[in-house]
Amino acid sequence: MHKSFINVSPESHFPIQNLPYGVFRTTNRSPRIGVAIGDFVLDLAVLADAGYFKSNESLPDGVFKKDSLNAFMSLGRPIWKAVRARLIDLLSSENRELQDDESTFKEALIKRDEVTMLLPAQIGDYTDFYASLEHATNVGTMFRGADNALNPNWKHLPVGYHGRSSSITAGNGNIRRPTGQIAPSDHPTPRLSPTQKLDFELEAAFFIGPGNTHGTPIPIESAENHIFGMVLLNDWSARDIQKWEYVPLGPFLGKSFQSTISPWVVTLDALEPFRTNQPPQSPPTLSYLTPQHPSAYNIQLEVGLKTENMSAPDTICRTNFKFLYWSMVQQLAHHTINGCNMRPGDLLGSGTISGPSPASLGSLLEITWNGERPLKLSNGELRRFLEDGDVVKLSGFAQGDGYRVGFGELVNTVIGR
Amino acid sequence: MHKSFINVSPESHFPIQNLPYGVFRTTNRSPRIGVAIGDFVLDLAVLADAGYFKSNESLPDGVFKKDSLNAFMSLGRPIWKAVRARLIDLLSSENRELQDDESTFKEALIKRDEVTMLLPAQIGDYTDFYASLEHATNVGTMFRGADNALNPNWKHLPVGYHGRSSSITAGNGNIRRPTGQIAPSDHPTPRLSPTQKLDFELEAAFFIGPGNTHGTPIPIESAENHIFGMVLLNDWSARDIQKWEYVPLGPFLGKSFQSTISPWVVTLDALEPFRTNQPPQSPPTLSYLTPQHPSAYNIQLEVGLKTENMSAPDTICRTNFKFLYWSMVQQLAHHTINGCNMRPGDLLGSGTISGPSPASLGSLLEITWNGERPLKLSNGELRRFLEDGDVVKLSGFAQGDGYRVGFGELVNTVIGR
Repeated sequence: MHKSFINVSPESHFPIQNLPYGVFRTTNRSPRIGVAIGDFVLDLAVLADAGYFKSNESLPDGVFKKDSLNAFMSLGRPIWKAVRARLIDLLSSENRELQDDESTFKEALIKRDEVTMLLPAQIGDYTDFYASLEHATNVGTMFRGADNALNPNWKHLPVGYHGRSSSITAGNGNIRRPTGQIAPSDHPTPRLSPTQKLDFELEAAFFIGPGNTHGTPIPIESAENHIFGMVLLNDWSARDIQKWEYVPLGPFLGKSFQSTISPWVVTLDALEPFRTNQPPQSPPTLSYLTPQHPSAYNIQLEVGLKTENMSAPDTICRTNFKFLYWSMVQQLAHHTINGCNMRPGDLLGSGTISGPSPASLGSLLEITWNGERPLKLSNGELRRFLEDGDVVKLSGFAQGDGYRVGFGELVNTVIGR
Repeated sequence: MHKSFINVSPESHFPIQNLPYGVFRTTNRSPRIGVAIGDFVLDLAVLADAGYFKSNESLPDGVFKKDSLNAFMSLGRPIWKAVRARLIDLLSSENRELQDDESTFKEALIKRDEVTMLLPAQIGDYTDFYASLEHATNVGTMFRGADNALNPNWKHLPVGYHGRSSSITAGNGNIRRPTGQIAPSDHPTPRLSPTQKLDFELEAAFFIGPGNTHGTPIPIESAENHIFGMVLLNDWSARDIQKWEYVPLGPFLGKSFQSTISPWVVTLDALEPFRTNQPPQSPPTLSYLTPQHPSAYNIQLEVGLKTENMSAPDTICRTNFKFLYWSMVQQLAHHTINGCNMRPGDLLGSGTISGPSPASLGSLLEITWNGERPLKLSNGELRRFLEDGDVVKLSGFAQGDGYRVGFGELVNTVIGR
């Protein structure tokens, strides 16, 4: 097992086994690319300038001195693997190259709490799937009754829709309560109002690496070569706006006001030890959707909720990425089967990741059953939906033997209009 | 009335009154921005280099020597107006500046059939509305019956959804028949097949100029300041793929294989003489959706269809942009009411523009009533949906007194897999 000369606690999400990529700036550094290690960020632009990637001949000059990962994402898995191997090497206790190069090392290593994290990529298109059987069943039961919960297509294809990319922000920050048309169900004349049913959705999402030629689908066997890495995604939702607007063309303003992602992109290579089977699929999928290898990952996920009157969040959901019925490679194979082209930096979300138990529901919509059963928090407060001042924290990690490969935390605060 | 020293026929779509912007390249010119005038393109990068925009002080250097209009779009209406005024001036018969500058003039003026047109903007987000009452009623009647044709929300808000921007292409070119899951309605087990119901949709679309700050809606009164100009849009659709996939999250792969737009962007300033009233709206709209001025434009639109056995297209639809129930400023005010941010180059489509008469239906779905009533072409051939080799031509113009402000033609050919 690799060990870094940088001290990393076993609970840290960012040990040498992880090395997630992000875009950051500081008061005196322009936006650039780094990897997280323990409580630090390693500035890859500084390392590149100092010649530490000279052996990686196919790495273009300046690829880390950019305000997005798109160029690096486009390079493909062999180069990602080579850079990862080089970084593990440089950060390993046994290797003295970087440790002994005091001036470079000092310049390259920055405390994580001193950097500002930026959106990791310029996101061209953003797609959100609906890949959790439990979530789809819960929502379907609420809105169409238990007998019609799942539509006939649901188990045949990963249902998804195009989302809004402009309003995706990375990292901690405020969520402004959106205004929109709301119509009480017994009286279909709408009024304009701030949403009364603001909700979170716990999701994961993956960034596309190299794209495909327009017209040429990505076969499921090679889909992983097009996946750069993963982030957590909070698909903030205004349930009342969504309910009134979404027939027949799908969610629109009930979602597009903002989506947030965690700023550190965890690569599939870092997640490889946690690969596992997805749930059994019945009926069997068409062959273009049938993976030849296990294509889920064992990633523990949590949602914390803290009101203004609480000093620490309650954990209100514990679930796992592996519960998803449809895996990432299935989503990507499906998305491109019609020839649709992916571009580096495109983002594909999983949909809410609910699990089989009542404690594993990934949205307040499900936890409170559309507000019917308020959630009682540890301090006695009740929540049907989110109130101004509420803080929602998503976090997730894969547990290794003595280390964690994690996503860090995504912490956002609801504010009024 | 302005008259140009460049000879332009009264039927041309590109007289001095129009001057639409596009991005083009030639065998020896890198991508750059030009305006169409008669049978020519005027290379604005050449004019700028020769100092012809020196008086336009707020015009950034190099804004026309780019492979997209995004930078120019972001500058806003006062600068667009100043550049337009300058171009009209330079091209007017009375003005000898450019006419007499033989070397610049010769370099700047290129025959239109010698240039390759490119996508006019890097499109961040693409949204498509469903703004035609006639189209929504026709489609709703087909799929839900006449009594439930319009959903309760339809007359209260412009229904829309997020589309796919990566697969939007500009200008003439092939449309590859997409493959996807198709399920016969009496037997909901899907198979993978090239679509059997490939269709066009006649739409218009507008490009965003300056965007809005995330969280701050665009009021309807100032919405026009955020609209750079318009293009024709063919929203190619695979009806069988769409039908199986679209519940409950809306159209996805049935649309995302490709959309095409006409390459010349016609500005709102050029369309100003053709401003007219939109259809009366009842029930009245909420105030954020109520325009203070007429907000439709009288633009005649046509669809031509030519099979491999025909020498010229049949005109199979004649309609008008002014028939749309929801206008562009309403679409934009609605899209941003939740704080969603627009960015320069974002594209917003109208949805299929069908009119009140049987000859004004903007899709084969409506013309053939989902294939039930085949369309008989002039050579006796029948069409339910598009066949390989079929050529679809969209065109449109506003008729002035002795001149036309037009969009040119968008001609695409269907090819098999």
